Amino acid sequence: MKNTFGNCVSVTLFGESHGKYIGAVLDGLSPGVRVDEASVARELEKRRPAGRISTTRVEADRFEIVSGVFEGMTTGTPIAVIIPNGDTKSSDYSRGLPRPGHADYTGFVKYHGFEDYRGGGHFSGRITAALVAVGAIVKGALASRGIIIGTHIARCAGVDDAPFSDISREIGILNEKTFAVLNEGAGERMRALIESAAAEGDSVGGVLETAVVGVPAGVGEPWFDTLEGVIAHAVFSVPAVKGIEFGAGFDAADMRGSECNDALSLSGGVVVTETNNSGGINGGISSGMPIVFRTAVKPTPSIFKPQKTVDILKHEEAVLELRGRHDPAVVHRARAVVDAVTAIAVADMLEERFGTDYFGETR
Amino acid sequence: MKNTFGNCVSVTLFGESHGKYIGAVLDGLSPGVRVDEASVARELEKRRPAGRISTTRVEADRFEIVSGVFEGMTTGTPIAVIIPNGDTKSSDYSRGLPRPGHADYTGFVKYHGFEDYRGGGHFSGRITAALVAVGAIVKGALASRGIIIGTHIARCAGVDDAPFSDISREIGILNEKTFAVLNEGAGERMRALIESAAAEGDSVGGVLETAVVGVPAGVGEPWFDTLEGVIAHAVFSVPAVKGIEFGAGFDAADMRGSECNDALSLSGGVVVTETNNSGGINGGISSGMPIVFRTAVKPTPSIFKPQKTVDILKHEEAVLELRGRHDPAVVHRARAVVDAVTAIAVADMLEERFGTDYFGETR
Amino acid sequence: MKNTFGNCVSVTLFGESHGKYIGAVLDGLSPGVRVDEASVARELEKRRPAGRISTTRVEADRFEIVSGVFEGMTTGTPIAVIIPNGDTKSSDYSRGLPRPGHADYTGFVKYHGFEDYRGGGHFSGRITAALVAVGAIVKGALASRGIIIGTHIARCAGVDDAPFSDISREIGILNEKTFAVLNEGAGERMRALIESAAAEGDSVGGVLETAVVGVPAGVGEPWFDTLEGVIAHAVFSVPAVKGIEFGAGFDAADMRGSECNDALSLSGGVVVTETNNSGGINGGISSGMPIVFRTAVKPTPSIFKPQKTVDILKHEEAVLELRGRHDPAVVHRARAVVDAVTAIAVADMLEERFGTDYFGETR
Amino acid sequence: MKNTFGNCVSVTLFGESHGKYIGAVLDGLSPGVRVDEASVARELEKRRPAGRISTTRVEADRFEIVSGVFEGMTTGTPIAVIIPNGDTKSSDYSRGLPRPGHADYTGFVKYHGFEDYRGGGHFSGRITAALVAVGAIVKGALASRGIIIGTHIARCAGVDDAPFSDISREIGILNEKTFAVLNEGAGERMRALIESAAAEGDSVGGVLETAVVGVPAGVGEPWFDTLEGVIAHAVFSVPAVKGIEFGAGFDAADMRGSECNDALSLSGGVVVTETNNSGGINGGISSGMPIVFRTAVKPTPSIFKPQKTVDILKHEEAVLELRGRHDPAVVHRARAVVDAVTAIAVADMLEERFGTDYFGETR
Repeated sequence: MKNTFGNCVSVTLFGESHGKYIGAVLDGLSPGVRVDEASVARELEKRRPAGRISTTRVEADRFEIVSGVFEGMTTGTPIAVIIPNGDTKSSDYSRGLPRPGHADYTGFVKYHGFEDYRGGGHFSGRITAALVAVGAIVKGALASRGIIIGTHIARCAGVDDAPFSDISREIGILNEKTFAVLNEGAGERMRALIESAAAEGDSVGGVLETAVVGVPAGVGEPWFDTLEGVIAHAVFSVPAVKGIEFGAGFDAADMRGSECNDALSLSGGVVVTETNNSGGINGGISSGMPIVFRTAVKPTPSIFKPQKTVDILKHEEAVLELRGRHDPAVVHRARAVVDAVTAIAVADMLEERFGTDYFGETR
Repeated sequence: MKNTFGNCVSVTLFGESHGKYIGAVLDGLSPGVRVDEASVARELEKRRPAGRISTTRVEADRFEIVSGVFEGMTTGTPIAVIIPNGDTKSSDYSRGLPRPGHADYTGFVKYHGFEDYRGGGHFSGRITAALVAVGAIVKGALASRGIIIGTHIARCAGVDDAPFSDISREIGILNEKTFAVLNEGAGERMRALIESAAAEGDSVGGVLETAVVGVPAGVGEPWFDTLEGVIAHAVFSVPAVKGIEFGAGFDAADMRGSECNDALSLSGGVVVTETNNSGGINGGISSGMPIVFRTAVKPTPSIFKPQKTVDILKHEEAVLELRGRHDPAVVHRARAVVDAVTAIAVADMLEERFGTDYFGETR
Repeated sequence: MKNTFGNCVSVTLFGESHGKYIGAVLDGLSPGVRVDEASVARELEKRRPAGRISTTRVEADRFEIVSGVFEGMTTGTPIAVIIPNGDTKSSDYSRGLPRPGHADYTGFVKYHGFEDYRGGGHFSGRITAALVAVGAIVKGALASRGIIIGTHIARCAGVDDAPFSDISREIGILNEKTFAVLNEGAGERMRALIESAAAEGDSVGGVLETAVVGVPAGVGEPWFDTLEGVIAHAVFSVPAVKGIEFGAGFDAADMRGSECNDALSLSGGVVVTETNNSGGINGGISSGMPIVFRTAVKPTPSIFKPQKTVDILKHEEAVLELRGRHDPAVVHRARAVVDAVTAIAVADMLEERFGTDYFGETR
Repeated sequence: MKNTFGNCVSVTLFGESHGKYIGAVLDGLSPGVRVDEASVARELEKRRPAGRISTTRVEADRFEIVSGVFEGMTTGTPIAVIIPNGDTKSSDYSRGLPRPGHADYTGFVKYHGFEDYRGGGHFSGRITAALVAVGAIVKGALASRGIIIGTHIARCAGVDDAPFSDISREIGILNEKTFAVLNEGAGERMRALIESAAAEGDSVGGVLETAVVGVPAGVGEPWFDTLEGVIAHAVFSVPAVKGIEFGAGFDAADMRGSECNDALSLSGGVVVTETNNSGGINGGISSGMPIVFRTAVKPTPSIFKPQKTVDILKHEEAVLELRGRHDPAVVHRARAVVDAVTAIAVADMLEERFGTDYFGETR
């Protein structure tokens, strides 16, 4: 299935960094969901490069919704979004010297040298703009059902953000921020460290923490289509992600059962758990508690220090000295993409469970 | 798709802990692959409970291959394996008091109380025996192509095993062991700690590390069906898994790009990387280096200490005092299951790439 | 995906004619659906060979539901049904001389000679018993929602049955019959002609007509997952089927638009069509009218007259003189299989539309 | 999955008749396939309305390939084609009076009135232009492997074309024709009858016959993903198709086995069949003989005679008098669409069988 993800709500992605358009087709979303183009623009803004901590490539992100929306509402048929590629400098790129940590070499082997190598081609983070655009539409659908998603930079360049404490309120705040931290002081230190890495021609990574509030209990499958498995499948498409953990995650490995188990109790007549080490998922199925997971984002592989590589055309060792425009960190931008793919994965599971009218208004 | 995983090579799982049979259907494996029942039995042995560190439920695991194998070779049509359930004590279980950390509550909500609650029903770790059986057949197919898989208990109850150093050789050793550690001293300490947790009516978790050696470069997809995403999707079905990381994983979040990037070089004319922080995968596609990932396994939720829960039939808070037979740790048994699902996921990607005859002999 | 069909409700098939068991796994059916083993047995009875118009192989069809049903109700987890193979005479079969009109040659090429050739192996009509068994469970689920399915032998050996006139009532009658005709006189003539073909060592074909009553309007997709496309996909798995037409079907090709279009009107406040040339489907989506389609079933390829073939091991032309037990017609038996796959396809589309609780009772 | 079809080679469709663009994303085609834009234009020409036998809506069909093709070759990543909608007259359409025989009513129920009703919206035959465009690319890939596809109008308005006799040569000829008949005299009579139906405000239907030559033996699956089932699934998406039959099809129902069975023999050392009543498929798997099927196309439902319908907003009976531009027949245009979806379905099965490099050149 490759560039398509999802069963009941699905997304298909296309485009290359230096092609004419990138785009995405979102299929299966209920008819009768209001589509707010301003909120799509706002989500795109979150993944745009900004200031000294990002690439200087200016991406206009003038998206167009070319199908599936009529009179401001989803029709129930495929929603295609296209985004023209504007400010491309193909001459910055040349084939032959694969960048360490990048897909240049693996893509060359897979596609036998027919891949569009300019600007990372189909592997470029640029493609995620289309994902964010359709994800924004899905976030709107989820919100109409009281389901909200938010991500903060839990850690970057060795600096920790404050943990989630009052998730629903904090998601609201995070969704207004471009650099998504709960503690602004931590955010300042992170940005300073990104800048100093950039000054050295180097890059940094980080950890994102995402919460989804409002998913009803009973969504997900015990085998294979576990909520964890489906979300992880989607999230590993976000470039640079190398790990994911739900709830206590790797820390759970060091706990005793008596510490890790979440005691059940009643709160206002509703079954809740007193802790949330399970991250809102047991046996692959939502418990009604917030779904919480953390994502490891590696440092951007495009750095300006000399690096050992192999000239794959001449088949000899070489040294790469990269030029061009590159992000010294992507973790703050990846956040919008993680939100987008999470929204799509969760919406897919909800429609699978409750049917294709789940999100729409009824006329 | 629920209980079916995979596109070109797929597995479908069925059964409940106290039903008549559990089983799995493996479809799409090439015709002409030798099936060695002894090696299936050996893999099943690895996930069987053993000694004081496991449940005392004795599972005979008398598997039967009822289709798809003819004269010792795969036919290319579905391979069904069934395993009768023998030593079940249904009276140990009763509905109504969901165990914290288990799927009892989420399963009840999802299935409206129609689920077979005895012994965890379809959520039981018991079901993984069928997965291990068909996984063993797939491991055999992979081996015929020089692809080997092995997992060790990298950490358990706070004790670290030695790291991988000479992976191919160590996979061979691990595959002979029931308690899969590289350092036997560390293994001794782990087992002692499992036993002392058991003595307190408690349980422990751990971290598994898995390596796959021999996957050729160029397998996997840039978007959605990344190797990481597909493996993670499969691995989160293994009960108690709450996290997965590839290569440097969460540690990569704290690295600089210059540390994390794997320099490319030539070794015997082959492109290799000098480090393997990417875990053998870049841009979702295999690089030809070993695929390495780590899996977080939470402590078994079934413990014997009193726990707060909710009586979901009476809808009131309650205290659970568990009886019956339960594992004080599952990390050492989960290892065989992680191997099995990894084998299936990797074989699926290989046949997608190279076609349905990839594994078989030709007559 | 091969031996698995369906997205939300899916079936996986396994087994060979002379293997130990054949079976099917039905996944995704709502929890809380009553399972009546007697009605499963009744459906199996419909596809059993009977009297002089069928093979003399006596198939006991002792099915066992080994998972997914608890206290007489579906649990919502996979329902596996296994059927032991009893009365097999492997010595009647030998490899090497492919039967014209059969899959012997194509299967040999596809599976490189590793296929289980005994009794048709995985291609055998025998496998449909498992499909009929799980189909019967799905028919029960549909009935709980007022959706009924029935098939009659519209034509056999050149003899026409009466057309449907009062479909709902006639479905009830057909479901009580082993040789499913609306006009018993026509049925007599058909059986006589089958017997005379059998006496000559030959075989006959026929046309089945199927109706599904009670599917609400609005189910199906405009592109690709049209109701016609999904049903056709399933029905072409029924051995010997070579054509399918919906509503007026091939006759529509000769009509004018003014004849073929179904006028819409109101009946008791409900939108209906005055004719049903569309077969209850427009634009791939159900209209609420009965879904009606006809299926062409070719004559059984296993005949006793000498036939030209090729010895695929010696690679030379040869003459085949078949022995063993074979049906002189399968159209009357195929009817139960068409019902079964139709039930599965329709249930899949209904759960996709209305969610996974569509069929179940709520506790 | 809805608007996406295929596993290894897949297509996703989007757009509405009066939206900004229609388009398709073709994914999974091998890297290294030459893409000839002129041949895409040629295929589009075949489905364009022409002369008095078609709608007077002039569709420019200025397609753009916006991704997946680099330096004239496929890259192996998704190929997106977009086609702007130009000459639209939305004022010709109004909601409320569903056209008999159309999807207006079923679409209204499914999408709750949120569908874009202008010009048939997402149900419009217009959408097939995108399908034909990507199908043309796939036809090119197939041709590079010696696999050719052609369709003729076997019957229209009661007039029969000559049957296929020398298929490979005739496919070449048909692919040069706009009105695809083997016998030009028959074609003349068909066109005259289409025009006289048009003069009466009425429409006619027909039968298409398609042949695929060059598919190697051994492609397809015995259960569910039979070649017949997969092709039928795809073909029923072509608007107005109501039936499909392979080989002898419905005629086989009246044959004896001794007539219908295709005798096997050797021809130049290759196993062939002396007749082709099976349409090149046995047991769901290709035999190496031409794949031949016939498709029933109903008369265009948009006619200018007064028709009974129901005003679905006022919920009362009404009379529809249609205006606007409509085809008095679509069978001659549908032919290009049948070719396209057949190409995609066959390519999908070939890559599933032989891997993702099947079609490409190697650098």
